[in-house]
Amino acid sequence: MPYLRNAWYVAALSSEVQDAPLARQLLDDNVVIFRAESGEIGVVLDKCPHRFAPLSRGKVRGEAIECGYHGLQFGRDGRCTLNPHGAKAIPNGADVRAYPAHERYGFIWFWPGDPAQADAATVPPYPFNEDPGQFAVVYGHLDVAGNYQLVVDNLLDLSHVEWLHPMFQQPGGVDAHRTEFFVEGSTVIANRWKPNVLVHGLHGMLWDKPSTHFDARSNMRWTAPATMSFDLGATDCGGDVEDGVKLPNAHLVTPASELQSHYFWSIARNRRIDDAQTGAKLQSIADRIFRTEDVPIIEAQQRNMGATSDLMSLKPISIEPDIPAMRARRILAELIREEQNGRRASAAE
Amino acid sequence: MPYLRNAWYVAALSSEVQDAPLARQLLDDNVVIFRAESGEIGVVLDKCPHRFAPLSRGKVRGEAIECGYHGLQFGRDGRCTLNPHGAKAIPNGADVRAYPAHERYGFIWFWPGDPAQADAATVPPYPFNEDPGQFAVVYGHLDVAGNYQLVVDNLLDLSHVEWLHPMFQQPGGVDAHRTEFFVEGSTVIANRWKPNVLVHGLHGMLWDKPSTHFDARSNMRWTAPATMSFDLGATDCGGDVEDGVKLPNAHLVTPASELQSHYFWSIARNRRIDDAQTGAKLQSIADRIFRTEDVPIIEAQQRNMGATSDLMSLKPISIEPDIPAMRARRILAELIREEQNGRRASAAE
Amino acid sequence: MPYLRNAWYVAALSSEVQDAPLARQLLDDNVVIFRAESGEIGVVLDKCPHRFAPLSRGKVRGEAIECGYHGLQFGRDGRCTLNPHGAKAIPNGADVRAYPAHERYGFIWFWPGDPAQADAATVPPYPFNEDPGQFAVVYGHLDVAGNYQLVVDNLLDLSHVEWLHPMFQQPGGVDAHRTEFFVEGSTVIANRWKPNVLVHGLHGMLWDKPSTHFDARSNMRWTAPATMSFDLGATDCGGDVEDGVKLPNAHLVTPASELQSHYFWSIARNRRIDDAQTGAKLQSIADRIFRTEDVPIIEAQQRNMGATSDLMSLKPISIEPDIPAMRARRILAELIREEQNGRRASAAE
Repeated sequence: MPYLRNAWYVAALSSEVQDAPLARQLLDDNVVIFRAESGEIGVVLDKCPHRFAPLSRGKVRGEAIECGYHGLQFGRDGRCTLNPHGAKAIPNGADVRAYPAHERYGFIWFWPGDPAQADAATVPPYPFNEDPGQFAVVYGHLDVAGNYQLVVDNLLDLSHVEWLHPMFQQPGGVDAHRTEFFVEGSTVIANRWKPNVLVHGLHGMLWDKPSTHFDARSNMRWTAPATMSFDLGATDCGGDVEDGVKLPNAHLVTPASELQSHYFWSIARNRRIDDAQTGAKLQSIADRIFRTEDVPIIEAQQRNMGATSDLMSLKPISIEPDIPAMRARRILAELIREEQNGRRASAAE
Repeated sequence: MPYLRNAWYVAALSSEVQDAPLARQLLDDNVVIFRAESGEIGVVLDKCPHRFAPLSRGKVRGEAIECGYHGLQFGRDGRCTLNPHGAKAIPNGADVRAYPAHERYGFIWFWPGDPAQADAATVPPYPFNEDPGQFAVVYGHLDVAGNYQLVVDNLLDLSHVEWLHPMFQQPGGVDAHRTEFFVEGSTVIANRWKPNVLVHGLHGMLWDKPSTHFDARSNMRWTAPATMSFDLGATDCGGDVEDGVKLPNAHLVTPASELQSHYFWSIARNRRIDDAQTGAKLQSIADRIFRTEDVPIIEAQQRNMGATSDLMSLKPISIEPDIPAMRARRILAELIREEQNGRRASAAE
Repeated sequence: MPYLRNAWYVAALSSEVQDAPLARQLLDDNVVIFRAESGEIGVVLDKCPHRFAPLSRGKVRGEAIECGYHGLQFGRDGRCTLNPHGAKAIPNGADVRAYPAHERYGFIWFWPGDPAQADAATVPPYPFNEDPGQFAVVYGHLDVAGNYQLVVDNLLDLSHVEWLHPMFQQPGGVDAHRTEFFVEGSTVIANRWKPNVLVHGLHGMLWDKPSTHFDARSNMRWTAPATMSFDLGATDCGGDVEDGVKLPNAHLVTPASELQSHYFWSIARNRRIDDAQTGAKLQSIADRIFRTEDVPIIEAQQRNMGATSDLMSLKPISIEPDIPAMRARRILAELIREEQNGRRASAAE
């Protein structure tokens, strides 16, 4: 299946792109992500048009990136700005493809589609990541050897916590969960409430009340192509959300290629926001859970599927908790179809 | 070449399948082998029909195996026995392929062909592995990156010990060997006698006489597809087999795929049968010989053959000691041809 | 592109082939290189015609190499000289392909084309490697995961030292270089002079004058297919080459396969020729530069080119310093075309 191209995807965590250029595969393209002297971000093809050395092996020079093999320089817009050799004329065609980029919420976003349609105002909102008075945030990035939609499936069906994640298991198993499912336009919402359960999980780590039970929620909101906002939290039994522990998450998946994905995440918290140790612990536990529990099963799924990303062609059996992810798959497929048809229509004009 | 399917193959050593399920590729299929609470063995496809997670990442629950992703359970017959979600109805078609299995002689055997033809009475006999009054036994398993018939070739032509295995070399080389070769029905027998040679080899380790010379034998008996019984032993020069050192072996090869094999072995002994240290030493020396001498040359052969298992299509030069293995290859090819024709005939009925 | 076959290529350093046979891929063929008891070199296919075990796993026996699996022996001319089994008759066709070989200048050369045309007198001359009164020599060998012509491009355009090799950088960058370029028949000469520059580089390591500046030169001479003689040296500013530091190099590239190469090199020196420590230091610094600076960028280029060796088909932008390498590529392509036409002509006779 082709990718949805006119959309913002995360290319990197802000923290991953500081002094040194970063090489990364995104939607099948090998790109270099670099931070110019001004702080602005460039995302260009990682291939010098001269002899095809990766620009990521070079250095940032002012607003440009310099090839580390023969010294040609390219701006954030991909234009060759310097040929240091001979008469120093810039050869025709000595440009590299550049992608619109925008830094926001602790992530570097890029737009793999038509640059004219890239509007920074449409980057999906994660306001808790920019609200330092209320929230502290930790971030992570993992590589997954599996199609990005398998990662979305995993996040839209959190029934799996009862089998995959000991830290989130409850005595009653999934019978202790109450679920809701809505579609709002092209947004899929899959809410999972666990009323009056034993204190547990990441919200349990921040729980500061004497009670041994709380009302927990893990409510996922998906928008195409693979950007999710996750309302993880807990209150006193019957208490008000505003008074409770909030751990709003971003879960952002970007295809590297058909069978390889980047999984970017952040977890904000409204408790112990000045305590760096709590942040470090949250980061390390979340990273461990994703890396040793979710990623291995997703990668094993992909291996069992063979060299295809087309889950439905393999005729899986479906069960109730699959509904939100199935709906998200259909919405995305429809958006891709529309985009492809639009292209064909423009091409035919 | 297709595999012979209506036959018992070894899936695992008994000792490999205790508490935890075991993932293994056998005849191109990825299966999970598990021991139910009753002790009975299940061998089923290692792919949950729901979202294709490997069942081997799950847990044994009573007589069933539970998927570690969303908790579906499957019996030893492959039937789905539990869907823990929603209304808990078991979806149509929620079964996995199951294979007849039988545990005997320290090995777990499975039958990849027509289940109706699987008869536990036809598991090839290794009685010395179940005769604790007379014999103690050690076991091993190796992966070989080569076609299974190359492993059989190796075992049916033991002239190679004079070049490949320093522990078995004799001053006279192959000139000190006397060989016999018989075909009995579809069984190939390749006997190799070394009369009046220096004490050496694994039989030498157990030699308890003052003499420096013995009559050694290494007599191999092959039955299709790749099960071998190996009579390794030594007597006083001119002595009686019954009075001598006996090390009856099983050598059992199972294709993982066309170019990858499992090599299972056991060595029984009628000397120092209560001495665990002797067993550990035998196990470790045999493992070292197979792992560092036989397996590397077989794997190098396979690499030199490229991505094919069809040795004869590469027009090898043949020499006298190849005869038993060539005969075994022809018998197996004929059995496979018959089986394939039988299938076509049934299909045509 | 096919290889030029009627040419000497380096198969190994002399020091790599002493007691043990050496397995190596050369121009797509897996060969074994061995030194017979007489000291003469054999280069034959690394595949026993019996069961395809690699001969490189065997032993040298007099003038022959013995297969380590079943003991067949083969001479330097590839003829089977011993079958130790049964009636010991040598089977028809039991030969392996042999290649003309010649040892000279510290290298083992082999001729992958028509053996009748192999003339040891046409091995390209590196006389400084056989002039122990004047020069001491160190040698090296590296594997490169890239097409051999990318290694030649690297060596024929030394402008790259200003970006890739800190040890050779000058304050003025490439503006401090004066370049010359000649074609003499089918030889390409690319001279690079750096007059009156700060003492630097490998020549700087041997500089024994009080001056802080010298005239440096790095003059490359290429002949087809990929053999280069490199005149690296330095003199007092305006001084005579004969009085200066001389570091004549051999740079010899042999394709392993289309996308994998062997890079053999030697560096002779006319200073401190009796000081082994100087030699060890030169060897280790040159090896580090090639291994950690040149090879990674060439391998990254190749990865960016995908699974092709045809640089020009990817339409690279070209700049002034590319001219010598472009000319060498054209000359080699023309020689290969002639050789291919010659073959077709002979075949048509």
